Amino acid sequence: MATIVSPPHFSPVEDAENIKKACQGWGTDEKAIVSILGHRTLFQRKLIRQAYQEIYHEDLIHQLKSELSGDFEKAICLWVLDPPERDAHLANLALQMPVPDYKVLVEISCMRSPEDLLASRRAYRCLYKRSLEEDLASRTTGDIRRLLVAMATAYKYDGDEVDETLARSEAAVLHVEILAKAVDHEETIRVLSTRSSVQLSAIFNRYKDIYGRSITKDLLNHPTNEYLSALRAAIRCIKNPNRYHAKVLRNAINTVGTDEDALSRVIVTRAEKDLKNITELYLKRNNVSLDQAIAKETSGDYKAFLLALLGHDEI
Amino acid sequence: MATIVSPPHFSPVEDAENIKKACQGWGTDEKAIVSILGHRTLFQRKLIRQAYQEIYHEDLIHQLKSELSGDFEKAICLWVLDPPERDAHLANLALQMPVPDYKVLVEISCMRSPEDLLASRRAYRCLYKRSLEEDLASRTTGDIRRLLVAMATAYKYDGDEVDETLARSEAAVLHVEILAKAVDHEETIRVLSTRSSVQLSAIFNRYKDIYGRSITKDLLNHPTNEYLSALRAAIRCIKNPNRYHAKVLRNAINTVGTDEDALSRVIVTRAEKDLKNITELYLKRNNVSLDQAIAKETSGDYKAFLLALLGHDEI
Repeated sequence: MATIVSPPHFSPVEDAENIKKACQGWGTDEKAIVSILGHRTLFQRKLIRQAYQEIYHEDLIHQLKSELSGDFEKAICLWVLDPPERDAHLANLALQMPVPDYKVLVEISCMRSPEDLLASRRAYRCLYKRSLEEDLASRTTGDIRRLLVAMATAYKYDGDEVDETLARSEAAVLHVEILAKAVDHEETIRVLSTRSSVQLSAIFNRYKDIYGRSITKDLLNHPTNEYLSALRAAIRCIKNPNRYHAKVLRNAINTVGTDEDALSRVIVTRAEKDLKNITELYLKRNNVSLDQAIAKETSGDYKAFLLALLGHDEI
Repeated sequence: MATIVSPPHFSPVEDAENIKKACQGWGTDEKAIVSILGHRTLFQRKLIRQAYQEIYHEDLIHQLKSELSGDFEKAICLWVLDPPERDAHLANLALQMPVPDYKVLVEISCMRSPEDLLASRRAYRCLYKRSLEEDLASRTTGDIRRLLVAMATAYKYDGDEVDETLARSEAAVLHVEILAKAVDHEETIRVLSTRSSVQLSAIFNRYKDIYGRSITKDLLNHPTNEYLSALRAAIRCIKNPNRYHAKVLRNAINTVGTDEDALSRVIVTRAEKDLKNITELYLKRNNVSLDQAIAKETSGDYKAFLLALLGHDEI
């Protein structure tokens, strides 16, 4: 379930005009911007961006970038971007870091529907004139490349059919590779990157039934490295996306100085999907509500914006 | 350039009715079927199939399958299928063979536009309820799996921009891996499966300029195996699709007993694209026209159909 609160009736032209007003003159009226954009659905934001372009012959994103700054600017621009463009942008940023941010790439590859992942790859190609897998493969090597490229290029079956016999036999395949601490996880990568979500759930369940421990626990027995932590992240994304997101939020909030990029990423990408469920899980696990935790660790317009996306104006 | 000859005006309903007539009563009038379907464009065939479905509540393909047989049936059904369905069908057949027919998979992966390849993967998923890469990865292992899955899942940039500096440096990367007879061709597979067609042409050209021999010649120095022959096929598909197809046709015709599957596949998939150029190349290389060679090696309705696609009714 989503968390944002949006008006059933709205005028894209009025919103565009009010945003323009907030950007004009001395200083910017950030509050006005939050009160508008923080309460508009994907479809509504799309119409506002279109109206803005038609009236002022300027991309709303460019305007916001020039008026705002810091984490607030980054978060609100992410929010205004269309989801495929947003994913392409996040993936590109992750790949430009000195050490690519594997977790972002894993999240995008594992938690989008097959059609949404295709749309993100299409957006990436349009924006950067290279394919996502092209940049991914040229910025990584070895095991992690094999894993990330296979996940990012998948176009999985997304129906409901499950092959139980196959689930059993592939649970065994994974178990052999993981227990043997094989030098490469060729079959594990194949299974993770090609089997459908429902089939993978069946495989993970059979794994636990047969061997008595979850696959993620068995993977913890390995000495950790980048590849294994990406592999574990991928499995956790597939097994339980809400729990995974709650964990990313907790780490982002608890880390010294707060990881605003991760915080914004999860809030912005999930606010219209399942952020409600994630906040419930967060409260259960951390004995503090996500809203309170965020209010404590952030400030100013950035804080106001995140809380708006969480369905509150002020707490 | 295409070879088929089609009327500018036609009636899908009349065509559907005439095909039905040809299928009714004792025996089938194969000549009538060839004279209609052998002279209709993709769009026209689509309309005929739709009209057939509306009038007789039956898929034209099913009707043709039940009335015809052998190579003629297989070729004409391929011809009536929509190209993405056709590719999905060809890939699935190739994967069902005791040893998968790698060349078919290489052709589909390397010679379709990025959008067409996506459409074929989409059709595969609809038809078989599994993804193409899922079946591909579970039917193959090792190097050849890495190559085929990477090629089949690519969604390459298909603009005109070429990075010449990168072309030089990646020509060197390929040269090192190929000359060293490396145990795996990890970088070669990465380059082939992610760089755009125009970028790959630049890389192959720089390779020849710098090292004095073409990459395919250098690959011939290796002891041959399945993987290397698939790799060479992929490079030849990308470098010069017409020459590659002319070669496949020559092999199909010259092999003892004729390889009708390969013959039909190339004629059917290229008749509306570049079969004219392929036939010119064929004549130049073999001193016999493709029409004559096919007329000599085939017979009956199958022969008449292939020649119709080549733009002749009888030679």
